[in-house]
Amino acid sequence: MKIAVIGATGMAGQAIFEEARRRGHDVTAIVRDEDRALMAFGSDTQVLVSDVFNLTAVTLAPFDVVVNAFADHQRPYLNLDALTHLIHEYRQLESRIIFILGAGSLMQATGQRLFDFLADLPGNETWIDEPRYGVLALEILRATTNVNWTGVSPQQEFLPGSASGHRIGHDEVLLATDGASHVTAGNMAVGILDEIESPAYLQDRFTVSDL
Amino acid sequence: MKIAVIGATGMAGQAIFEEARRRGHDVTAIVRDEDRALMAFGSDTQVLVSDVFNLTAVTLAPFDVVVNAFADHQRPYLNLDALTHLIHEYRQLESRIIFILGAGSLMQATGQRLFDFLADLPGNETWIDEPRYGVLALEILRATTNVNWTGVSPQQEFLPGSASGHRIGHDEVLLATDGASHVTAGNMAVGILDEIESPAYLQDRFTVSDL
Repeated sequence: MKIAVIGATGMAGQAIFEEARRRGHDVTAIVRDEDRALMAFGSDTQVLVSDVFNLTAVTLAPFDVVVNAFADHQRPYLNLDALTHLIHEYRQLESRIIFILGAGSLMQATGQRLFDFLADLPGNETWIDEPRYGVLALEILRATTNVNWTGVSPQQEFLPGSASGHRIGHDEVLLATDGASHVTAGNMAVGILDEIESPAYLQDRFTVSDL
Repeated sequence: MKIAVIGATGMAGQAIFEEARRRGHDVTAIVRDEDRALMAFGSDTQVLVSDVFNLTAVTLAPFDVVVNAFADHQRPYLNLDALTHLIHEYRQLESRIIFILGAGSLMQATGQRLFDFLADLPGNETWIDEPRYGVLALEILRATTNVNWTGVSPQQEFLPGSASGHRIGHDEVLLATDGASHVTAGNMAVGILDEIESPAYLQDRFTVSDL
């Protein structure tokens, strides 16, 4: 398939780009810094140099699936802006867009969202905005009926690391065998490529966890 | 003040443009169809011809206040897209943007949102999307801390008509003396121009009702 990864040089994007290439897909890295992409993936890499906000339906149309792995942790409101910009462009397209969301919108076993737990923690002022915007991002997606979207959440800890075996969930916090909620970028990438090849969560959200 | 009205030839936009001009402000109509604006307001009208999605921080920067009166009732998801696009651009500006929202997010005396009442009505399929997106629009605004925004909701019925005396509320459905919830475009325009000249609802939402 013809796949593009927005933010391909970030932690998640790099793992997804490499997993897609490993499986023989025709992959394009959409990045702001071409040199960084060529350094990461080799000089024969297909690169589309663009800021996420300059991507249009016309530039996105050639791809069967685009994965949005853009993430700005310093200015998390830009993650929301990028999502709404892409939704607007994709209203004109039938092809598929997969958004990497945060874990804050996942439900805990208590019936409470992970975000509601995080929002009550003292000293969260410096980092609570990112999960807050992530919760809103999923609400916006769920209200979006004329875009072929899928959301994918990592688990509470989203860490560098290769594929080591994973499982898929729907809307829940999942605990690995060590009792904690985490997923590596490599496992996320495998979960996302499986979903690209065998769609199961169209206009829905799923999550990937380490074993 | 230097004021611009996006969607100045619509019902709300036209009343706001005329009220702003009547008060002696320097007003610009931001419209897609220049001829229609010149026909509505006269050949000496200042017009900026632009689709709302092509407006940028650079083109918006000259105005002290912009009122977004863009509304697409056939494709109400575009109202949400326009709001998020403008939020993104205004993150770079300190000047003020006022969004005309729907009435669905107003609270009824029962403690229930007007939208929740509407969502339970049989046969609402053809029109419920517009208030649904309106509710989400206010949620997005309330999560927006780095834009100088104000939201203004009409009442349940938003009708053509001139200024005839109005009152202001915060988040509530207001009932006029006839026991119904309504506001004319002329009364909305007076309420909005009062708020522009004497800001009381910065990063907040207010509502205007007929007497």
